[in-house]
Amino acid sequence: MLNHQFRLAARPVGLPKRSDWQYVEEPARDPGPDEVLVKVQYLSLDPAMRGWMNEGKSYIPPVQIGEVMRAGGVGEVLASNHPNFKSGDVVYGTLGIQEYATVPGKTLTKIDTSVASAPVFLGALGLPGMTAYFGLLDIGKPQPGQTVVVSGAAGAVGSVVGQIAKIKGARAIGIAGGKEKCDFLVRELGFDAAIDYKSEDVKKGLKQHCPQGVDVYFDNVGGDILDIALTQLARNARIVICGAISQYNSTTGVRGPANYLSLLVNRASMTGMVVFDYAARYPEAMREMAQWIAAGKLKTREDIVEGLDTFPETLLRLFKGENTGKLVLKVTE
Amino acid sequence: MLNHQFRLAARPVGLPKRSDWQYVEEPARDPGPDEVLVKVQYLSLDPAMRGWMNEGKSYIPPVQIGEVMRAGGVGEVLASNHPNFKSGDVVYGTLGIQEYATVPGKTLTKIDTSVASAPVFLGALGLPGMTAYFGLLDIGKPQPGQTVVVSGAAGAVGSVVGQIAKIKGARAIGIAGGKEKCDFLVRELGFDAAIDYKSEDVKKGLKQHCPQGVDVYFDNVGGDILDIALTQLARNARIVICGAISQYNSTTGVRGPANYLSLLVNRASMTGMVVFDYAARYPEAMREMAQWIAAGKLKTREDIVEGLDTFPETLLRLFKGENTGKLVLKVTE
Repeated sequence: MLNHQFRLAARPVGLPKRSDWQYVEEPARDPGPDEVLVKVQYLSLDPAMRGWMNEGKSYIPPVQIGEVMRAGGVGEVLASNHPNFKSGDVVYGTLGIQEYATVPGKTLTKIDTSVASAPVFLGALGLPGMTAYFGLLDIGKPQPGQTVVVSGAAGAVGSVVGQIAKIKGARAIGIAGGKEKCDFLVRELGFDAAIDYKSEDVKKGLKQHCPQGVDVYFDNVGGDILDIALTQLARNARIVICGAISQYNSTTGVRGPANYLSLLVNRASMTGMVVFDYAARYPEAMREMAQWIAAGKLKTREDIVEGLDTFPETLLRLFKGENTGKLVLKVTE
Repeated sequence: MLNHQFRLAARPVGLPKRSDWQYVEEPARDPGPDEVLVKVQYLSLDPAMRGWMNEGKSYIPPVQIGEVMRAGGVGEVLASNHPNFKSGDVVYGTLGIQEYATVPGKTLTKIDTSVASAPVFLGALGLPGMTAYFGLLDIGKPQPGQTVVVSGAAGAVGSVVGQIAKIKGARAIGIAGGKEKCDFLVRELGFDAAIDYKSEDVKKGLKQHCPQGVDVYFDNVGGDILDIALTQLARNARIVICGAISQYNSTTGVRGPANYLSLLVNRASMTGMVVFDYAARYPEAMREMAQWIAAGKLKTREDIVEGLDTFPETLLRLFKGENTGKLVLKVTE
């Protein structure tokens, strides 16, 4: 069985180019003891991948040059030497950007596609959903009636953050790029308002939609928008630092939030979160989120692009803000 | 009785110049109903004063042009129309940069100079001490054995932060400018180590003295040192944002901490504090601090400069890093 893969060929400078990848064709490896061979169906494309391509210490080791690019994915078990899995099972795991993954069984989780379709397990019921759930509820701690603002609001994490805020009785204001995304947030997901940073003055929008100030700011983007949000904080506001997509491809270094002294003036906090810390509580969150989905309170949206070979270009859609909802690469049915 | 005063003449650009002040001579005003006339003895000079001179919303209204410069002070009651005070009482209050203050009695607090000398009530037993106490214990929350790093460590707040850290069983590392200050921190105040940012590589110093990383970083300075501290955080570190003296006189705007994504990598938080929020708990803190002073566990240090007329130049000592301990302007005995 031939396996096609994308391996990291070079550490990118700025936006990853096709030449930063090596497209490799090699036979799929048979599973060894306790290993499982998975046919990859859907792969998760995430902004965090850009960080994994850089050298240096972070919350997770970098992908090494020559390694298959790390990615979460869903697939079907073809062969298993692990007692928990059998042929035909649908599983989630770190499968990598490839068609066939041979991985230790202990790194896989069986998923139940009667609850939701497979791609949802990469979005609302996957790490983005867990990130939204724990970041908002454990760190942001919105109270009923308070105002939650989320940037990258039409993305995989942001779209869930706003909906959970609403479920918990808070107001949800999204910041996103383009009229279509903003309409989606308000009309389909039930956000109270959306601000189109491409055509609107974000500061004016925040003043209009958050007249009592911003109680929780969930930041996925960094840069200018973080700096503007800092000027509109309510007393005792909580900022959740989840990501900084505007900065990941910067060739001149990350820009710090010049308005950070607003934390002092407003007795506010800014706290970083990494979803993996909550792994022991994923089942609890997934149960609750699945109930919300079943009840129609939480809407999921995936943006699915077909074809493993499109990976280098499809990944860039994240950084160009072209996806609405969770960006998923479809490898095969 | 003639009263000499410094009033704000212009909003400074960069470091305040003498021409930003108006030196006024006018008769002291007799106290009206419920007012008290105080002969000012000692005035507190604080980095925060620079912020009060700027226009715009902050945690406290700015000093208006033409107003007597706001300052905490200690003085002796000369005449009182308020039932709580009588002639001869020693009081603390917002007296302003002047020789005689006529203020509402309800804004004054009687102090007991048998506990400590009057200037100490502007330092360790005054707002700087309260800032250190609540900022460190309520926000920094150091655990025994953890490492606390404080910048501006030889200043009024920093010198107390490090000593409270030691009292609570944590390690204390100070960052200060110059060998003399660093020696003072280690030899007189009992810090575990001090890093001289003027002659040492701060990053190297932090790596050496905080091999397990920085658990609590108490920031008084902002700028480069905040950015370096961010690179050395331990998992779940707490940064207390108390001030940013390196930025207050910037004419090109505040510089944001470019390494703020270290908050994410390390699941760390950065929280702003304003001491006034703890006013209801000052008595509790003052009692405990007074006991520490009496027991020789907390050493106080004041840097006293004599002469009201030296105010414009004496204030600048803060921004030039020339003071060790609490900078106090002595007006009269």
